[in-house]
Amino acid sequence: MNQKFVEKTVSSQQIFDGKIIKVFVDTVELPNGKHATREIVRHPGAVGILAVTKENRVLMVKQYRKPMNQFLYEIPAGKLEPGEDPKLCAIRELKEETGYVATNMTPFSKFYTSPGFADEFIHLFYAEGIEAGEATPDEDEFVELVELTLDESIEMIEKGKIVDAKTIISIYYLQMMLLKGREK
Amino acid sequence: MNQKFVEKTVSSQQIFDGKIIKVFVDTVELPNGKHATREIVRHPGAVGILAVTKENRVLMVKQYRKPMNQFLYEIPAGKLEPGEDPKLCAIRELKEETGYVATNMTPFSKFYTSPGFADEFIHLFYAEGIEAGEATPDEDEFVELVELTLDESIEMIEKGKIVDAKTIISIYYLQMMLLKGREK
Repeated sequence: MNQKFVEKTVSSQQIFDGKIIKVFVDTVELPNGKHATREIVRHPGAVGILAVTKENRVLMVKQYRKPMNQFLYEIPAGKLEPGEDPKLCAIRELKEETGYVATNMTPFSKFYTSPGFADEFIHLFYAEGIEAGEATPDEDEFVELVELTLDESIEMIEKGKIVDAKTIISIYYLQMMLLKGREK
Repeated sequence: MNQKFVEKTVSSQQIFDGKIIKVFVDTVELPNGKHATREIVRHPGAVGILAVTKENRVLMVKQYRKPMNQFLYEIPAGKLEPGEDPKLCAIRELKEETGYVATNMTPFSKFYTSPGFADEFIHLFYAEGIEAGEATPDEDEFVELVELTLDESIEMIEKGKIVDAKTIISIYYLQMMLLKGREK
């Protein structure tokens, strides 16, 4: 695409400097020369972990989410600390939220969650050789570990009981890999 | 999960009332009785459209995204107008961004993009019986239509050239359905 489609920043105003997010309103010059505003949420980024037990159960956490006042089923996940290596973050978050320890983490997907208004970027990892252990949640973190089969997970997506983007990507990926493996 | 894990709202302060997003900082009471703050972005929600041409090409739009200062490949998508039916929104957005007209839209997935801090909810639709036509983009919308095979799309995800959550979900879904069909 022609670089003329880039939006040039005319000015940038910080609206909010929170503990997790920062909010900016930028004025940009559009390709047609007109000015427009862009509302932008800056986020530190996060990791998500697809972890499957020896009994072929996918590890999920059930967790209250304030923005939608609802409990959601999600794969274990967490925000990146400043400068933190995503792989180490994935090992740390899996242990904190589920107690499971992984021997290795293999990246399998990465994406922006809401590119229209936020720069949050999620790195997904597949946890290798996991072993159960003691969970060590943050003091203010309340999550319940749930173990689901792949079929149960797919069914919950179809029924709208799993409604989290990173979790759906992970479950679809797992299903896809399994179906591809059977093809060979 | 026990309802005691719900976070009770103690107070809510609106920080920003933008054209697209609204930002709140809520003080909540945690299950352990302590108080904490929650930074919440409210968003009107959106639709995304998985549309495959008769020549088996997936319709994508390449578009500049200000939050990451980058051009992204995404399935056609757009924000819901207040009170708008998601299916009608999907028909409208597909026509605006690509010119293609669908005879019907079948919902196949729905999810929160960033449940930790935002309530944005995306409805995905599969566009049936699409026919090419004239695109009618908003005056201030600059998108380029790109048509990709499924294999090209999968490869671009693997190489990190497609990095949008709703697009990855749609492509994985298409691949999964195709593999399942072959199994039968």
